[in-house]
Amino acid sequence: MDIKEAALKLHKELRGKIEIKSKYPIKSLEDLTLLYTPGVAAASMEIFKNKNLAYDYTSKWNTVAIVTDGSRVLGLGDIGPEAALPVMEGKALLFKLFGDVDAIPICLATQDTDEIINIVKKIAPTFGGINIEDIDSPRCFEIVDRLEKELDIPVFHDDQHGTGVVTLAALSNALILVDKKLETVKIVIAGAGSAGTGVTKILLKAGAKNIIVTDSKGVIFSGRTENMNPYKEELANTTNPENLQGDVTEALKGADVLIALNGKPNSITVDMIRMMSKNPIVFALGNPEPEILPNDAKECGAKIVATGRSDFPNQVNNSLAFPAIFRAVFDARLEKVTDEMKLAAAYAIADFIPKDKLNEDYIVPRMTDKGLREKIVENILRAANKN
Amino acid sequence: MDIKEAALKLHKELRGKIEIKSKYPIKSLEDLTLLYTPGVAAASMEIFKNKNLAYDYTSKWNTVAIVTDGSRVLGLGDIGPEAALPVMEGKALLFKLFGDVDAIPICLATQDTDEIINIVKKIAPTFGGINIEDIDSPRCFEIVDRLEKELDIPVFHDDQHGTGVVTLAALSNALILVDKKLETVKIVIAGAGSAGTGVTKILLKAGAKNIIVTDSKGVIFSGRTENMNPYKEELANTTNPENLQGDVTEALKGADVLIALNGKPNSITVDMIRMMSKNPIVFALGNPEPEILPNDAKECGAKIVATGRSDFPNQVNNSLAFPAIFRAVFDARLEKVTDEMKLAAAYAIADFIPKDKLNEDYIVPRMTDKGLREKIVENILRAANKN
Repeated sequence: MDIKEAALKLHKELRGKIEIKSKYPIKSLEDLTLLYTPGVAAASMEIFKNKNLAYDYTSKWNTVAIVTDGSRVLGLGDIGPEAALPVMEGKALLFKLFGDVDAIPICLATQDTDEIINIVKKIAPTFGGINIEDIDSPRCFEIVDRLEKELDIPVFHDDQHGTGVVTLAALSNALILVDKKLETVKIVIAGAGSAGTGVTKILLKAGAKNIIVTDSKGVIFSGRTENMNPYKEELANTTNPENLQGDVTEALKGADVLIALNGKPNSITVDMIRMMSKNPIVFALGNPEPEILPNDAKECGAKIVATGRSDFPNQVNNSLAFPAIFRAVFDARLEKVTDEMKLAAAYAIADFIPKDKLNEDYIVPRMTDKGLREKIVENILRAANKN
Repeated sequence: MDIKEAALKLHKELRGKIEIKSKYPIKSLEDLTLLYTPGVAAASMEIFKNKNLAYDYTSKWNTVAIVTDGSRVLGLGDIGPEAALPVMEGKALLFKLFGDVDAIPICLATQDTDEIINIVKKIAPTFGGINIEDIDSPRCFEIVDRLEKELDIPVFHDDQHGTGVVTLAALSNALILVDKKLETVKIVIAGAGSAGTGVTKILLKAGAKNIIVTDSKGVIFSGRTENMNPYKEELANTTNPENLQGDVTEALKGADVLIALNGKPNSITVDMIRMMSKNPIVFALGNPEPEILPNDAKECGAKIVATGRSDFPNQVNNSLAFPAIFRAVFDARLEKVTDEMKLAAAYAIADFIPKDKLNEDYIVPRMTDKGLREKIVENILRAANKN
């Protein structure tokens, strides 16, 4: 049985991957007089007097809404809210398994930006945080930016922020191995969707100075008019210091790092890799199909290769980050996930591998590595001045 | 420690009454390749091809959203969405405990009717059903009516429908004991909010012919202009066959049944009960404070008394109905909760008590009675022609 068949069979057997569980072992109806009427009225009235007490008396403090409109689910595209649900339930599993966070899928039957923002704001009282997921760019950027400003609970966008954190972690370690510095390397990011944009932003924050971002129309530069939007304008203004123009091949000449995030299998060729500088680092993060297969990249000279897949070495896996980040946010009731906290998470992930254990096939921790979550939480709380 | 203190303490210890649980015992990361990427894509693509398969491959089939705007929570009033959350979590516990239904509180930061309807429609892809809860009347009526028409998943309004079902069950048995017929008794319903309206509607469906509904302005009659709305107009047109006018005392003259649902403690006096006919039946369902205390009602002649409280005999408790109703709806994937199904639920509850066991203090089953849920489910499925 192949993986597709096995997955379908398991999904059908389970009929849903998550369920609701009582946190209290109810033994008699007497328990319900405390947990429901009349006792519950006391908790409600305390919260009525002081809304903040919802964090003390309800599940709000540990509950995140996974919000999607189903417009860009995994690499499957605009498959709609119902078809997005198995993925969001899977995400909820990961939240619980790796972060002890209660996550609830909310799959929306609208792709209208203003409406999505309004709905998230109106359902927010139930939740301690919002995770935006698999919404197409550039709509996702406006949704996330506005929710971050307008909501009083933390908003995270895993496609941007989670990918950014784990990619920075992996790249930091890769650069140690090839003895290069983030501040001076030339980095090409192929893909200007949510992942490409998120990775670019965190690398800039971390000190990268020479990043060139490309999309389907080639290099993004100041003055480009084709296929632009305010978010690409921002990329044009903050990257590409020499205002290079041309296609991705042009950009890759002499580059030290390629991070492919366009999701197009075989969009990176061996000839492109051959144009890069000595000891090139190649991250092909398209999932399930990387933009170039690791063996092909290695054969044409890539020194260190990472993918998004678990069946190759160096999996750049968001699950390393988002459950731990929300764990920290919820433990300390942080109001926002700041850039400093994202950097702290990335460095915690990178530093988790002792320098003497780092090697070409181990630049990023594995999900099974024990103690990683605690390290990430600790580092985030330090960055937030909460420990 | 009194109940209030004990409830607050327990709520604080738990910090939330419900949590998310994986339905699959994840033992290794291999499991995740089926439950999450890449395997999950197979389930998503099946649903993309046929939306209905969301019922086979996700939790949708067994998940209900408990939607409130916090405008009329228990007897506490307009306490807002955050303060409503402990109550909705308690309701979710009851759904799970008595119906094996997964229920998710959605407490909305809006009391705008159109906006609530729109939000519920837009979050519906995640859910197999909607339970509207503790929204003030008359707004709740429009919300429920429109959602029933515009959504393709079942909509239930426990304040109306759940209360109606259990009240009809209790009244049916009470009438057997006093040897009267629903079709011929005079029934006064004190209160025209969601519960009063819901009870009136189901009693009419069950065959009652002589119902008089009162609100704070007295009897509702055709032609009344004070404090009316389209829902009270409908009550005026479907009840009060002699178009009686006056206050509740006027209405109670010669009445066989009083069902008080106005939530006002002491609003029913012994003098009012004394005006009723022989062997009067008095349901004082205000919770936690009944409109008249059972002992007072009994002392002035009430033959059978029921309340909403667990510490008196004959608790008219919605929990007898809503978890089992959703169990039936979800088991058979019913598209609506029809009037016939509500009647079937009521009669299953009433008939659960063998005729020779019926007595003044046992007209409605207790939550602890074994086998009730199965009986209700069976009866609903029969009514829906699904068994």
